[in-house]
Amino acid sequence: MKFQSADIGVIGLGVMGKNLALNIVDNGYRVAAFDLDAAKVLAAEQQALTEVPQRGLVLKGFDAMPELLQSLSKPRVLLLSVPAGKPVDGVCQALIAAGIERDDIVIDTGNSLWTDTIAREQQYKDKFIFFSSAVSGGEVGARFGPSLMPSGDKAAWEQIAPIWQAIAAKVDSTTGQPMERSQPGQIIKGGEPCTAYIGPSGAGHYVKMVHNGIEYADMQLICEAYQLLHHGLGMTAAEIASVFEQWNQGKLNSYLIDISAEVLKQQDPLTGKPLVEMILDKAGQKGTGLWTAVSSLQIGCPAPTIAEAVYARAMSTQKALRQQLSQQLAGPKTHVDIDQRQSLIDALEAALYCAKVCAYAQGFQLMAMNAKEQGWQLDFAAIARIWRAGCIIRAGFLQTITDAYVAAPQLDNLLQAESFAGALSALQSKWRQVVASAVLNGVAVPCISSALAYYDSFRCATLPANLLQAQRDFFGSHTFERTDKPAGEKYHLNWSQSDRTLVKID
Amino acid sequence: MKFQSADIGVIGLGVMGKNLALNIVDNGYRVAAFDLDAAKVLAAEQQALTEVPQRGLVLKGFDAMPELLQSLSKPRVLLLSVPAGKPVDGVCQALIAAGIERDDIVIDTGNSLWTDTIAREQQYKDKFIFFSSAVSGGEVGARFGPSLMPSGDKAAWEQIAPIWQAIAAKVDSTTGQPMERSQPGQIIKGGEPCTAYIGPSGAGHYVKMVHNGIEYADMQLICEAYQLLHHGLGMTAAEIASVFEQWNQGKLNSYLIDISAEVLKQQDPLTGKPLVEMILDKAGQKGTGLWTAVSSLQIGCPAPTIAEAVYARAMSTQKALRQQLSQQLAGPKTHVDIDQRQSLIDALEAALYCAKVCAYAQGFQLMAMNAKEQGWQLDFAAIARIWRAGCIIRAGFLQTITDAYVAAPQLDNLLQAESFAGALSALQSKWRQVVASAVLNGVAVPCISSALAYYDSFRCATLPANLLQAQRDFFGSHTFERTDKPAGEKYHLNWSQSDRTLVKID
Repeated sequence: MKFQSADIGVIGLGVMGKNLALNIVDNGYRVAAFDLDAAKVLAAEQQALTEVPQRGLVLKGFDAMPELLQSLSKPRVLLLSVPAGKPVDGVCQALIAAGIERDDIVIDTGNSLWTDTIAREQQYKDKFIFFSSAVSGGEVGARFGPSLMPSGDKAAWEQIAPIWQAIAAKVDSTTGQPMERSQPGQIIKGGEPCTAYIGPSGAGHYVKMVHNGIEYADMQLICEAYQLLHHGLGMTAAEIASVFEQWNQGKLNSYLIDISAEVLKQQDPLTGKPLVEMILDKAGQKGTGLWTAVSSLQIGCPAPTIAEAVYARAMSTQKALRQQLSQQLAGPKTHVDIDQRQSLIDALEAALYCAKVCAYAQGFQLMAMNAKEQGWQLDFAAIARIWRAGCIIRAGFLQTITDAYVAAPQLDNLLQAESFAGALSALQSKWRQVVASAVLNGVAVPCISSALAYYDSFRCATLPANLLQAQRDFFGSHTFERTDKPAGEKYHLNWSQSDRTLVKID
Repeated sequence: MKFQSADIGVIGLGVMGKNLALNIVDNGYRVAAFDLDAAKVLAAEQQALTEVPQRGLVLKGFDAMPELLQSLSKPRVLLLSVPAGKPVDGVCQALIAAGIERDDIVIDTGNSLWTDTIAREQQYKDKFIFFSSAVSGGEVGARFGPSLMPSGDKAAWEQIAPIWQAIAAKVDSTTGQPMERSQPGQIIKGGEPCTAYIGPSGAGHYVKMVHNGIEYADMQLICEAYQLLHHGLGMTAAEIASVFEQWNQGKLNSYLIDISAEVLKQQDPLTGKPLVEMILDKAGQKGTGLWTAVSSLQIGCPAPTIAEAVYARAMSTQKALRQQLSQQLAGPKTHVDIDQRQSLIDALEAALYCAKVCAYAQGFQLMAMNAKEQGWQLDFAAIARIWRAGCIIRAGFLQTITDAYVAAPQLDNLLQAESFAGALSALQSKWRQVVASAVLNGVAVPCISSALAYYDSFRCATLPANLLQAQRDFFGSHTFERTDKPAGEKYHLNWSQSDRTLVKID
C-alpha cells in the first residue's frame, strides 16, 4: 500500500475489529490494519485476500504505529476496536507518541462508558479529534452490516459519514425490513443505512448503553415466556420453538425471537438432548445493562423492567443458593387446565408484547431525560430507525416506534403514543391473565410483572405516594404539597403536638 | 464553662445536631455547641437551660472555632451534624485552621456517602481522627434515643462508646421491646443500647445506607397495601387505620405501621377530610435509597424490591404524565366480591410480611456481599439488634432477624433461616392470592409483586438463564457452561456453520 493511500486505519484486530475492517474493504475502501499481536495482523490480511480477491491488496497489516500513520491519507481516520477502559487510553497515548496530528480523527467503537468518552474528547483535544461510534450487531453485524451510533465533533462526522453509511446495515425504504447481507464481497445498493449522527460526544455511547439495557429486558422477557411454557405448561423445547416461530410472524417479529427459536431447535451434539437443557443457568454480563439501570436511578427515570432484567442475571449466578432454597422454600403445584393452555399461550404473546413496549418506553424516556440534562438534541425517530437492522434488538416493532416519534417528536413517554396506548389498552387483560397465572403457579416472571406494575402505576392519577409523604413528614418533618394549594407550596403538620396544627413552610 | 471542661463539642445546630446535643446533656455530659448562625447557638443554649434546668450550664454556645476547641477536654471529641458533601469538608478545614490536634476525634453523623467517609479518614489522618456515626430515628430519635452506627478507628470508638451507649435508644433485655423515652431530662437506666461498633471507616455509613434502602421498601409496601384497601376495596382512611392498628398487634408490629395508622386517622385541619387525601402524591427523596439500589446493581446483589421502591417514588413525581396517561391507558373495572373482602384483607397481612422479609433479605445480603469485597467483618446479629429501637425501621421482626443470625452468623441470605423459610412457605399462597387479585383489578403493586418474583426465582433450581446463555453465545460467541461438565469449563456452539459443532474454549 503506497504512502498515504489508505482510507482508514483499524487498530485492534479481535473479531470485532477484523470484521469491521473486512466490511470496510468489501465496500471499496483501503484499510491499514494494526494489532500488537502479529498473528492477528496476518490473519486479517489473509482473510481479506481470500474474501475480497478481485481487488488485490486492500488490507495491509502493520505492527508499528508510525508506519501505520504514514500509510494513511490525511486528515487521517483511525477506528479503534479495543476493550473499553485503559486500553483505549493506551492506544491514544501510543498514537500521540507516533505522531498523530490535530486534524486526525480517532473513533472509539468499543462499549466505553459515555462519561469517559466526554472526558477523552476534552483530554485529547489539542492532539487529535476523539470521536466515537458505538456498534451493535455482534460479530456478524460488524462483518455484514451493524447499527452504528456515532457522536462527537460534527465536522468529523461529515468526514467519516460516507464509510459509515456504506458499511452499516441497510433497511428497505419501502418495506422497512432489513436488507440481508451475508456474503463476503457482497454489497448492497440503496436502502437506508442504519447509522445517523447521534449528537455531541457521549451521546452515541449513551444511546448504545440504553440499547443494551433494553436488550437485557428483551432477552429476559423471552426467557420468562420460555419458563412459563416449559415449567408452567410442560412444553418441550421443540414445541416452544414452534410457538416462537409463530410469534415471529406477528407483532413480536424480531431477531431475538428468531434466534431463540433457532436455539430451542438445536440438539446438543454430545447427548442428543435439547441443547438448552444442557446449558448451565448462570447468566454472564458485560456490564452495559447495569450501567443503564444505574443511570435510570440517578436521573430519576423509572426503568424497573430494565433493572429487573439485570437483577435476574445476578440471581441466576447464585446457583448454589438457589439449589439450597429450592429444597427449603415451598411453592404451589403447577397446574394449568388443558382447556386453558392454548388461551394462555395466546395471552402470553400479548403479555410479551405489552411488557416489551414498557421496556422500550423506559429506555426512550431515559434517553430523553438524560439528553435534557446534558443539553443534547436527540432525534428519537432517527434512533429507532437505525435500530431496525444490524443491531441485536432489531424488530418490526422499531418501525412502530419510529412512526410514533415522527408523529410526535416531543413525547415524554412512548405510552403516550396513540398506537401504543391503544395496543396496550386492548391487550392488557391478557397480560393480567398471564401474570396472575404465573403467580398462582409459582413461575417467576420478574420482568413481565414489573412491566405491568409500571403500566398500572403510570395510568394511575393518584398513587399512594400521598401516604408516603405523610409518613416522611411525620418522622422527618420533610413537608408535603397539597392537592388544593398551588404547586411548590410546602406544608407540615405538627404531629408531635397535642394540637396538630398545619403550618405553611417558607 | 471552664477551659477544657466540656466533654464533647457539637458542630451544626440544625434540628438533628441540636437534638443530639440535648440528648447528650440529658445524660449528664457537658456540651460545647457551635454553629455559624448565632441564632441557632442561642436557641440551643436556651432549650438546654429550659429542659435540663437542674444542672445549670451544661450546654455552652460558641461562634468561633478556636474558643470551641479550647473549651473541650483532651483528647477532644467533636460531633458534626452538617449536610453531607462539601459542608463536611468545610468544617474539617476550619477545625484544622483553628488548631485541632492529631489525637482529637471528629465524628461525622450526617448521611454521607460511605466511600466519601473512607476517603476522608485517609485525607485527614495526619491532622485528626476522622470517625463517623450514622444516625437513624429522625428528630425525635436524635432527642430521645436514636439507633447509632459508628465506624472507623477502633481506639476512637472505645473513647466515645460511653456517650454513645448512654444516648442511644434502649431495648428491654427480657422482652426485646423498645424502652420508650420521651421527656427532656428523663434518662433510662439499664436496657441494651442500640449502638455497636460496625467496622472500619465506611462500614457504618454503608449499613445506614442499606437501612434507608430497606426503609424505602418498607414504606412502599405499606403504601401498596393502603392502595389495595383504598382503591381496590373502597375502604376509607379511618377503616384502613383500624386494619393497620390490628396488624400492629401481630407479625407486622413496627413503628412504620404504627405511624401509618396515626396518619390515616388524621383529619385535615383545613377541610376536615382525611389529611392523606389532601396531600399531593409526589414523593420526595434524599437519595440514600437510590444509593442502595445503585450499590446492589454494581455488586451484583439482587435487590429488586428496594429498587422498585426507589422507582415508585420517581414515578410518583411524574404526576402530569400520569394524569394524562390515566385518560389514555385502559384498565379493568375493580371488583372484589363482598365475601372475598375479609379474606383479601387477611391475605394482605401475609403478603406484606412475606414481601417485607424479602426486602430485608435483599438488604442483608447486600451488606454481606459488600463487606466481603471491602474486607469488613460485619456482625449481622448486632446490626439487627441495634435496629430494634430508635431507628425508623424498628419492628418486632428485627428480633426474629437477630435470632436467625445468632443461630447462623454466616447466612448468605435470610431466606435460608428456618424461621423465615418456614414462615414464607406457610404464607406464600396468600401472597399469591393478593398479587393475583391486584393484577386482575388493575392496582399497581410493584414491590409486593417484585418480592414474589424474587422468592420464586430464588427457590427455582433451574432458571431460564440457560436460554439466555444460548442467545448470548449465538449472537456474541460469549460461551456457556454445561450442566454435565465441571464448573468453569467454557463451551461454544458454531451456530453460523452448517455443521454446528460444539467446541471447548480454553
